[in-house]
Amino acid sequence: MAIRVTIWNEFRHEKTKEKVKALYPDGLHAYIKGFLSDCEDMEVRLAALDDPEQGLPDEVLNNTDVLLWWGHMAHGEVDDALVSRIRDRVLNGMGFIPLHSGHHSKPFKAILGSTGDLTWGADQNCRVWNLCPTHPIAAGIPSSFELFEELYSEPFFIPKPDDLVFATWYENGNIFRGGATFTRGLGKIFYFHPGHESRMSFYNEYVQRIIKNAIRWAAPVSMPLVLDEGCIHQTEPLFVRK
Amino acid sequence: MAIRVTIWNEFRHEKTKEKVKALYPDGLHAYIKGFLSDCEDMEVRLAALDDPEQGLPDEVLNNTDVLLWWGHMAHGEVDDALVSRIRDRVLNGMGFIPLHSGHHSKPFKAILGSTGDLTWGADQNCRVWNLCPTHPIAAGIPSSFELFEELYSEPFFIPKPDDLVFATWYENGNIFRGGATFTRGLGKIFYFHPGHESRMSFYNEYVQRIIKNAIRWAAPVSMPLVLDEGCIHQTEPLFVRK
Amino acid sequence: MAIRVTIWNEFRHEKTKEKVKALYPDGLHAYIKGFLSDCEDMEVRLAALDDPEQGLPDEVLNNTDVLLWWGHMAHGEVDDALVSRIRDRVLNGMGFIPLHSGHHSKPFKAILGSTGDLTWGADQNCRVWNLCPTHPIAAGIPSSFELFEELYSEPFFIPKPDDLVFATWYENGNIFRGGATFTRGLGKIFYFHPGHESRMSFYNEYVQRIIKNAIRWAAPVSMPLVLDEGCIHQTEPLFVRK
Amino acid sequence: MAIRVTIWNEFRHEKTKEKVKALYPDGLHAYIKGFLSDCEDMEVRLAALDDPEQGLPDEVLNNTDVLLWWGHMAHGEVDDALVSRIRDRVLNGMGFIPLHSGHHSKPFKAILGSTGDLTWGADQNCRVWNLCPTHPIAAGIPSSFELFEELYSEPFFIPKPDDLVFATWYENGNIFRGGATFTRGLGKIFYFHPGHESRMSFYNEYVQRIIKNAIRWAAPVSMPLVLDEGCIHQTEPLFVRK
Repeated sequence: MAIRVTIWNEFRHEKTKEKVKALYPDGLHAYIKGFLSDCEDMEVRLAALDDPEQGLPDEVLNNTDVLLWWGHMAHGEVDDALVSRIRDRVLNGMGFIPLHSGHHSKPFKAILGSTGDLTWGADQNCRVWNLCPTHPIAAGIPSSFELFEELYSEPFFIPKPDDLVFATWYENGNIFRGGATFTRGLGKIFYFHPGHESRMSFYNEYVQRIIKNAIRWAAPVSMPLVLDEGCIHQTEPLFVRK
Repeated sequence: MAIRVTIWNEFRHEKTKEKVKALYPDGLHAYIKGFLSDCEDMEVRLAALDDPEQGLPDEVLNNTDVLLWWGHMAHGEVDDALVSRIRDRVLNGMGFIPLHSGHHSKPFKAILGSTGDLTWGADQNCRVWNLCPTHPIAAGIPSSFELFEELYSEPFFIPKPDDLVFATWYENGNIFRGGATFTRGLGKIFYFHPGHESRMSFYNEYVQRIIKNAIRWAAPVSMPLVLDEGCIHQTEPLFVRK
Repeated sequence: MAIRVTIWNEFRHEKTKEKVKALYPDGLHAYIKGFLSDCEDMEVRLAALDDPEQGLPDEVLNNTDVLLWWGHMAHGEVDDALVSRIRDRVLNGMGFIPLHSGHHSKPFKAILGSTGDLTWGADQNCRVWNLCPTHPIAAGIPSSFELFEELYSEPFFIPKPDDLVFATWYENGNIFRGGATFTRGLGKIFYFHPGHESRMSFYNEYVQRIIKNAIRWAAPVSMPLVLDEGCIHQTEPLFVRK
Repeated sequence: MAIRVTIWNEFRHEKTKEKVKALYPDGLHAYIKGFLSDCEDMEVRLAALDDPEQGLPDEVLNNTDVLLWWGHMAHGEVDDALVSRIRDRVLNGMGFIPLHSGHHSKPFKAILGSTGDLTWGADQNCRVWNLCPTHPIAAGIPSSFELFEELYSEPFFIPKPDDLVFATWYENGNIFRGGATFTRGLGKIFYFHPGHESRMSFYNEYVQRIIKNAIRWAAPVSMPLVLDEGCIHQTEPLFVRK
């Protein structure tokens, strides 16, 4: 059974900035869908902030196994009720992959219980280091590879990651825990920092490979438990000595 | 400088149920304060839901290093604005120790990004196991000790703990990750499951020792960074090659 | 490409004890191979202590992706040079799955840097709890399931697990962190406690499913880095400012 | 009761290289002892490779709470029996703090079950980042600080750290998980990378503060369990239903 992937994009920069439009004419989300086209184990849908129901009506969200999220300038416009629905889906097993500026999105904060605050600055040369070569998300990734990206730096206010898969070196003196996994309820989360709208990180073969790996890793492994019913009252002992 | 401890208690059961009143005539919080009285490194304050501003006006919260939280029947009455203020304080370094039914309190859920759902059942014999004898919270605690407590059982929907210090065996076939640490921002969190209002767990010498250890562990280690200002814009390179 | 699995068994109890012989006439390892026969992605080999070169000549070890290990009464007979070769293979990416009494085997201790000491006692009813339903090793496993097994109990002297996937409740008051993952170098390790030679745990459908899941999880994800050459001297800067 | 600290130093470079001698005329270990002199809660002893019994006779080792270790050119000369004794002491609760090139020492490898291999290169500007401001080892340490140090880089073959407290940025493109904690048995381990013999890192106020913090963190929290007797046979049930 294919992994049902939904790529959600704010999809604003691509309409207003010439540079971004030139790189991603149909939107970042469509570009990502493009490089996933060789993944026969995935069915990919697109969703955008300006779509009806902000792109994620129940029918879509409830049939999504892994949700990718790219947002930046319009975090505040995302409906709080949608944020709660996304959070509940993650707790019931949906994978969630916030990209780049998604560290400050409402779903990121609600799911992780963290501000996502960080230090940022000018675009520069950087090098992504593979710190966890045993992790499925790092399969096929070398010890390090180069990008040109917006500076995202420590201190980064996230909970302690389950696994710190990648950390990034920046030319001007900073480092950043930019590839980190978390679990919440039955759901797996992977935050990955590349993907500035005016840069070409999504064209990079390793970034593409990491996103593919992450989707496969984040797909639910178990049938949902009856999580949305809250606490369970166990009325009979599990064990009775005979 | 003393650790400034505030013990927040819902303080309702003690007023309405004879059995609880008999065990904790001035409230669970007052009883806990009592056994902390030999801790010369602590200054302890009490706070209750029915106090003005639900017991935690700015003046109190902003001068609290570690907040203990006991709530049960009135979780829903806690003001959402107060929950946000508690969460921000934790992110800025305040320690937070939710006890027993606090797993379902609003601050627990907001801070951990988790439902806190679990399975529960009848009071029974149980045995708390020390899984992490290197941890400061386990100092002086034997390999295991007995209690008679309400059943709290797996599945327990919490994020992966930083350290699983204790887990509890129950007579009728269950286990529970009932002593777990987390970090959020600059704040440390310890959830500990004993403390049912109609049972004597707070009289137990090991429970008392664990709570003392946990307060010392959860006290902030660093001066608060300027966390509440959100993301920081770094305008100059940290490193310039000469 | 299939996962190349080698099941190593001490294979002594099965020759000397009638009860064990009746349960596992061709050895525990052959029984395990039997229930793996529906895994088309695996090629399974058997190896035993009394085979030439203790069952693991270079040709076998160097062509093994995941090594299962069952030993008990003859830990001391395993050659130290073989232990070193196993350890080096794990550091270069081979998965390692010590079962049951393998907690005290030489490879377990050398790889984990730990004694593996524990408390043990009489066979009894027990219940394995699934603490990590997001983990691939827990795929398809319910919240808990029953076994009748030898008592293995805390305190268990292992390093802090990367993930504590299962913990086991025992009728007489004990618990045990009996399903735990670790990483060393490029290799993944999963210790799993069921499998007493005179009990039927390997007949249990969930134990079988967990072993299958664990083999897939422990298979190497990356090509080996040049680990066996020791430290690498980097003679040129990775980054030169232009 | 004071923490009994022993600083072990290979103490060879200081005798043969003029530059090192100038920086550390009585040895690195004596210099470290010097800056610990304001710690009234510590009793500090020195030990060196060329002392009788390589500086660590039973009387010393068995009365050490925290052992610091600096070795480089003479790792191979350390006696294997001594390595076993150090490992057993750590498993029974002694703290262990290998510094700089101690990543390749025999005790490091035996205790962690890892090669400690890394990539190294020319001395250069670097910046140590504080990734875990909630950790007692990070108390009083800013978000980052500068050193001039030998390049130590990823890939670094260590088990997954319990806490990654510091990671270091290097001018020429590398990063390194250079401040990491581990536990083994009852013992706590902290590896910290600064301290090249020909550089002044031990003069740095933050390095000094980190070493002081680490000693206090690594001191044993519990009385030793009877670990050195191996597995314990529990002959009576802990729980008997009445």
